[in-house]
Amino acid sequence: MVTYKDSGVDIGAADELVGRIARRAGALPAANVLAGIGGFASLVKLPPGLAEPLIVAGTDGVGTKLRVAFATGRHDTVGIDLVAMCVNDVVTIGAAPLFFLDYLACGRLDVEVADSVVAGIVEGCRQAGCPLVGGETAEMPDMYPAGEYDLAGFAVGVVDRARLIDGRDAREGDVALGLPSTGLHSNGYSLVRRLFMPAGGGPDLAARVEELGCTLGEELLRPTKIYAGEVALLAATGEARSIAHITGGGIAGNAARNLPAHLGLALRWGSWRVPPVFGMIERRGVSVEEMLATFNMGLGLVAVVRREAAGACVRALADAGVEAVEAGVVVRCGEGRERVRVER
Amino acid sequence: MVTYKDSGVDIGAADELVGRIARRAGALPAANVLAGIGGFASLVKLPPGLAEPLIVAGTDGVGTKLRVAFATGRHDTVGIDLVAMCVNDVVTIGAAPLFFLDYLACGRLDVEVADSVVAGIVEGCRQAGCPLVGGETAEMPDMYPAGEYDLAGFAVGVVDRARLIDGRDAREGDVALGLPSTGLHSNGYSLVRRLFMPAGGGPDLAARVEELGCTLGEELLRPTKIYAGEVALLAATGEARSIAHITGGGIAGNAARNLPAHLGLALRWGSWRVPPVFGMIERRGVSVEEMLATFNMGLGLVAVVRREAAGACVRALADAGVEAVEAGVVVRCGEGRERVRVER
Repeated sequence: MVTYKDSGVDIGAADELVGRIARRAGALPAANVLAGIGGFASLVKLPPGLAEPLIVAGTDGVGTKLRVAFATGRHDTVGIDLVAMCVNDVVTIGAAPLFFLDYLACGRLDVEVADSVVAGIVEGCRQAGCPLVGGETAEMPDMYPAGEYDLAGFAVGVVDRARLIDGRDAREGDVALGLPSTGLHSNGYSLVRRLFMPAGGGPDLAARVEELGCTLGEELLRPTKIYAGEVALLAATGEARSIAHITGGGIAGNAARNLPAHLGLALRWGSWRVPPVFGMIERRGVSVEEMLATFNMGLGLVAVVRREAAGACVRALADAGVEAVEAGVVVRCGEGRERVRVER
Repeated sequence: MVTYKDSGVDIGAADELVGRIARRAGALPAANVLAGIGGFASLVKLPPGLAEPLIVAGTDGVGTKLRVAFATGRHDTVGIDLVAMCVNDVVTIGAAPLFFLDYLACGRLDVEVADSVVAGIVEGCRQAGCPLVGGETAEMPDMYPAGEYDLAGFAVGVVDRARLIDGRDAREGDVALGLPSTGLHSNGYSLVRRLFMPAGGGPDLAARVEELGCTLGEELLRPTKIYAGEVALLAATGEARSIAHITGGGIAGNAARNLPAHLGLALRWGSWRVPPVFGMIERRGVSVEEMLATFNMGLGLVAVVRREAAGACVRALADAGVEAVEAGVVVRCGEGRERVRVER
């Protein structure tokens, strides 16, 4: 007789993993969760006190940063990246994360590796302040090579309509505050790997690089910063008029994305700290222009505030240990003009 | 100079695809959508008239049914499966689908193939009656072979707390109504492919099979039935006490999943129609017991209702063209007993 297990799918391993995930997820905030991991679907109530709640949703993956995890054998941080990439999109409109779900696909389920990935997802949820309420682990023989997997994440947030940050109040002359990134975050890795992990060789990922203060592998795996707390602080000031997550497409593609069409940003190169990994990329032959359209270059989040409020916002963030800088100003932007200029 | 495009990521193709997705998605119901495809995140308001709205979420993929699409070159139906697998989980609790998001990962973005996949997703959303509000297309060179891709879906629904269908009202003697599946749906494909698409050969997917009334490829690709409309009908009767989606784990693993722990189901084999594809699988050496723990065997959804209401529910469904059957009854279930018995 032929069984399902013969075909390469191990339901027992999946059940073992689901138990471990439920235990890990149990440490997360769960005040709003009515039904979490294990049912057909997850059930969440809305936090109290919202006059007109709006639901905000985003999905993203980690891209080929996963290959750095495969190459180094360290799987407990890409889950932080997964949560970050989704949650940082959701919070741009002023929403608080409500819950997160993940999709993990692999060829052969390795419970230890998957558990390690989930540990990162749970850590990301902890940083974002939201529960992990469900997910799917798909074991698909001959879809993924041994030791490889893909991840997709789904974040849902909620915002009261009156507190939506949608860019409509932004004006010429407003200040663009830049919040520091932790490095590459999770974008542009196909280019990064071409430079640092070319097929058939490249530098030793385990070797320490003085300029970076860590190994190359550690730098390339450094988790994406999660900005949920920072956005909550900014939202509480009532001064944030537009918030952008610097994600795929870099500073050029994202910084002005939530501004009205007639407005753009003039950013001052040098006003924020550019992490050394970007200098290494430039020296390997990537132009700054290309980098600005691919990477965050040190700015993970850009928030537009009234000029008069900029100082107070910077101080409010500084009190929470976040070093925001005045990175530029909102400018009028004619038809066909680049919406983000970086003045050097 | 090295550019991002050199590394195998074509932002232009991705932009072209996003435009096509937005046009396709524009045909879907959008009354609640405040911001859809193209922004950092999607923004949806709740439908009016809910006293205590609860948010329901589910994520799933299509599994290795995707390989049937790769083998036949037909990519416009797996998107229906994707929506079905997620939405059918979400509606079990009595929720109406509110919106859907997708994650499509590939090695090299083929805009025509991806557009075809999205056409299926949009058709699935049309059947489910919900908008496609966003998604992620991840082009990941050397993560997926040419022509291959993976899909994950994410469905969010909403239900008024007073109308939640959570199994707590189910009683011994209640009737289990079975709703017909369209065939394999999207589970057990690693086993199915082992039987019908073994490495290095197998029967011709393009050849007509009399028993099936179609080609083998058509049977294996037949889209999963979406039960959003049927559940809305059942919910409107106020009689549904528990609803189960027969998904991964088959009838045995799912039919009683939303019942209280002390209750199980006794189903009568022969009371529902078993599609011929399952007979073909049995003749290839899979036991009925194994099949019951892997496939839906013809029952895509099982709804538990009061005995006195069963006839009216069957008629309400019949009026909408859905042929539900009385497939069994709710029974007491001792500790350690199988929760689903199929009496033959």
